[in-house]
Amino acid sequence: MTSEAKPYWTTAVSDVDSSDVYVRGYPLKEIVGRLPFPAACFLLIRARLPSPGEARMMDAILCSVLDYSLQKPGTVAARYCVSGNPSMVAGMATAVLSVGEYTLAPDDAGRFITETYAVYRASGEPMAAQAEKLVAALKSEGKRIPGLGHPNFRVIDPRAQRLKETAIAEGVWGDACDWYEAVHKAFISLAGKPDLVINEVGIMAAVLAQMGFTPPEMTGVAIISSLPGVVAHVSEELQSKQRIRVVPDSIAEYPRSRKDLEEDLASAGWGRK
Amino acid sequence: MTSEAKPYWTTAVSDVDSSDVYVRGYPLKEIVGRLPFPAACFLLIRARLPSPGEARMMDAILCSVLDYSLQKPGTVAARYCVSGNPSMVAGMATAVLSVGEYTLAPDDAGRFITETYAVYRASGEPMAAQAEKLVAALKSEGKRIPGLGHPNFRVIDPRAQRLKETAIAEGVWGDACDWYEAVHKAFISLAGKPDLVINEVGIMAAVLAQMGFTPPEMTGVAIISSLPGVVAHVSEELQSKQRIRVVPDSIAEYPRSRKDLEEDLASAGWGRK
Amino acid sequence: MTSEAKPYWTTAVSDVDSSDVYVRGYPLKEIVGRLPFPAACFLLIRARLPSPGEARMMDAILCSVLDYSLQKPGTVAARYCVSGNPSMVAGMATAVLSVGEYTLAPDDAGRFITETYAVYRASGEPMAAQAEKLVAALKSEGKRIPGLGHPNFRVIDPRAQRLKETAIAEGVWGDACDWYEAVHKAFISLAGKPDLVINEVGIMAAVLAQMGFTPPEMTGVAIISSLPGVVAHVSEELQSKQRIRVVPDSIAEYPRSRKDLEEDLASAGWGRK
Amino acid sequence: MTSEAKPYWTTAVSDVDSSDVYVRGYPLKEIVGRLPFPAACFLLIRARLPSPGEARMMDAILCSVLDYSLQKPGTVAARYCVSGNPSMVAGMATAVLSVGEYTLAPDDAGRFITETYAVYRASGEPMAAQAEKLVAALKSEGKRIPGLGHPNFRVIDPRAQRLKETAIAEGVWGDACDWYEAVHKAFISLAGKPDLVINEVGIMAAVLAQMGFTPPEMTGVAIISSLPGVVAHVSEELQSKQRIRVVPDSIAEYPRSRKDLEEDLASAGWGRK
Repeated sequence: MTSEAKPYWTTAVSDVDSSDVYVRGYPLKEIVGRLPFPAACFLLIRARLPSPGEARMMDAILCSVLDYSLQKPGTVAARYCVSGNPSMVAGMATAVLSVGEYTLAPDDAGRFITETYAVYRASGEPMAAQAEKLVAALKSEGKRIPGLGHPNFRVIDPRAQRLKETAIAEGVWGDACDWYEAVHKAFISLAGKPDLVINEVGIMAAVLAQMGFTPPEMTGVAIISSLPGVVAHVSEELQSKQRIRVVPDSIAEYPRSRKDLEEDLASAGWGRK
Repeated sequence: MTSEAKPYWTTAVSDVDSSDVYVRGYPLKEIVGRLPFPAACFLLIRARLPSPGEARMMDAILCSVLDYSLQKPGTVAARYCVSGNPSMVAGMATAVLSVGEYTLAPDDAGRFITETYAVYRASGEPMAAQAEKLVAALKSEGKRIPGLGHPNFRVIDPRAQRLKETAIAEGVWGDACDWYEAVHKAFISLAGKPDLVINEVGIMAAVLAQMGFTPPEMTGVAIISSLPGVVAHVSEELQSKQRIRVVPDSIAEYPRSRKDLEEDLASAGWGRK
Repeated sequence: MTSEAKPYWTTAVSDVDSSDVYVRGYPLKEIVGRLPFPAACFLLIRARLPSPGEARMMDAILCSVLDYSLQKPGTVAARYCVSGNPSMVAGMATAVLSVGEYTLAPDDAGRFITETYAVYRASGEPMAAQAEKLVAALKSEGKRIPGLGHPNFRVIDPRAQRLKETAIAEGVWGDACDWYEAVHKAFISLAGKPDLVINEVGIMAAVLAQMGFTPPEMTGVAIISSLPGVVAHVSEELQSKQRIRVVPDSIAEYPRSRKDLEEDLASAGWGRK
Repeated sequence: MTSEAKPYWTTAVSDVDSSDVYVRGYPLKEIVGRLPFPAACFLLIRARLPSPGEARMMDAILCSVLDYSLQKPGTVAARYCVSGNPSMVAGMATAVLSVGEYTLAPDDAGRFITETYAVYRASGEPMAAQAEKLVAALKSEGKRIPGLGHPNFRVIDPRAQRLKETAIAEGVWGDACDWYEAVHKAFISLAGKPDLVINEVGIMAAVLAQMGFTPPEMTGVAIISSLPGVVAHVSEELQSKQRIRVVPDSIAEYPRSRKDLEEDLASAGWGRK
């Protein structure tokens, strides 16, 4: 590099020299066997070492969505994929791609919490009152609150509950989490849905927001958390004798319309063959 | 660039200047509206303009696997994907990833045809005799011949049949195609399976080999060919009201084993909590 | 299926029986060699046969973003990908995944055109006046107009220009396209940027909106259009001798911070090893 | 399900009831906060709880390829991807797709170790003699041994070294690992390359083979291990102001050929426009 020009690339994540890889400045050789993987995740993404409590919190988060049987779109998509292309890499990428607005991505909830929490802090209002005001406003605009509700769990989402317990025990629970719970409380009261839970994605977002993660980073963590299950499912599928999975006829119906191509091309102005 | 150093990147596919994009040396502005898309595909990949017959052959190939309803792993995977992550990009990437060894990828057949055809040519033997010898050898080694057989079609694969007719009509059918048919004939005779077809992927590989495509390029063409159907399915799924598709209970069964975590951790040497 | 239950899956895209695949009701065997691929794309996605003019328009659209050398993120990403994982499937999926908000995805422009055009129609105002009003409002809200501007082309985007010429020649150009041009005109006037173009993605969106495509379908078509170039680049990369591409040192700079792991763990409350 | 029919789907990985998710039979609620994530990975994939030593080994493996700066194709591909499509999901899938034959995938080495180790065991020969015989045979067939050599590290790969130390300390190192080292020793002796290392992927394969993982599962674990770095890089890229990354002109060169489309179409038999 000439000294004047700004380089096209730079990164503070890591660098390599002839003796080692330096991750956020620490030699990888010293990290392996010393830092637990969840603490290493925190270091890589947040660019500083976690406290032991933060590391245990990360560990709990990484375990919170380990698998969800054949009830998760990404898992089923991955198994279909490898029934045609028997590749772990393709199967895992497929599962990653199924994470989004409707499932497993905490970024929407993370953005919601971060933004509304900042407004609440600036307002100087009591938390409950401000939460009620926000929920009423959202309701009148027809907007939903991300991270609430679950197709299977009522009153309690067991994974969310464990995350909350851990956050409190490890000293990670904080004001942003309280704020999100206040919003939840205001919502189930206003909507008259007392059994509607904060789901695992919602609590994950609240705790990760409290620890300073950005919304895209939250989704990154959630994806890592879901991958042990994906590896297990893809491996199970690869070891099965099933190839080229399809939709079984017992659960499908087709209109089976039949049309005349030449007739319709003529009508569309194509002239006869 | 200083003139001495070899540049890290170079490409002969296209270049851009301030007035246009030059694709294999031709101005894109002149291509649009002049070259049919299948001819443009040929130009991009084979680095020369096709003859009109080669262009019509490409057109037929690009239409040959337009869709296969819910009987194709990639389509079903893509629909599961977008039921969680409502994104056309994610759905299309998922469908691409499901193309592989067991479905829709002509590269195995392409490599088989190219390699065995070269051996046949070098042998100086009559085609039928050499094909019988090859098939017998493969059988004794327990090896399969790629591109033969179809779960749905017997005796005739309608898509394969149309590709062959087009190849003959357009003057593209050639010796490598004849060779693959000779191998097929020897195989169904030796195996006693007269209704086993050359499938659409097999014929696609034979014709593309004849036109000079490499095996990975064949798979690239097959993927493009399959994408109109994928776009249609993903759009249909996005417009449906279905979110978070799962495996319906009517077609699933779970062992539902229940174990004691603390008991088993103790047995595994972890000590009591 | 029992007649009462709603099936979990249904599709109107195609169905398969023992003799053929029926695409939107037409036998695939009749489509191959009869319908040009761009017309088949239209049929699959729009669920009806195109007129000959619509088919030629689709052909021009499919040729409009055939390649953009090493100046497109998806192409470079795909080449890096296959330098580690030499797979056409992986390379193509990677290129697909790089299509999005900042490049090659017409869905934002498509949504903008569809929504603002509907407002204009409902307003009863003259087009120019309504466009000026909209642009002024967007400017005051700090919102951008999708599909305008290009890093390389000024005054004229040659691809956009050809698409417009084709749309007019084929009778596809219409009121929604005029509306988008009126918005563009109002914008460059208000912003004082006379050389700011409607780019190829903007025109593609306008023409596809006019032909009734939904925004996600527009992105699907744009992706298909870009894939011949991707296949060519991936093939070129696979045939190169380059493996494991990295960022060359000549264009990179690293902070190379060095920290003491044990020291910093102790400070973070971990206790000494 | 009627009791006679075999269900289309079944899985032993997990199941869900109204109160919890059961992972390999254990309630997820009990796992979170009790099992470290590496132990949970082991449980999911190997379908049994690990010993504490196996869990610590998994932890070390998951930390061994945390990042490799801008010297890894997948990281660079992911950053190019999100410079066009600013999505964590797309960036992570891209990085996953770059794992393969030339980088980061232990499956080749895993298959090699598993298969050759079985032959060695069956042979009854001394390990060193059998390793020399194998290496000589591979050399004469021009075959490479997967997992050996590294572009940056000589004599010692610091990550591989730490994995070996951990495996020995945790009682996981075993006969299959010794066998792979014997093959390495025979190879560097025969090839006269004393500074050629067993790289991190090779050692990872040996240790995971020893713990009973299949080759695709090994690749799954390696991918999880690489993702904290990917999340960090994608986040850094998303927070940069860089959009639409390209190949800088300083490291690229283009032939810039210019051809006459009408001329060449005429030569190819198309007739004049």
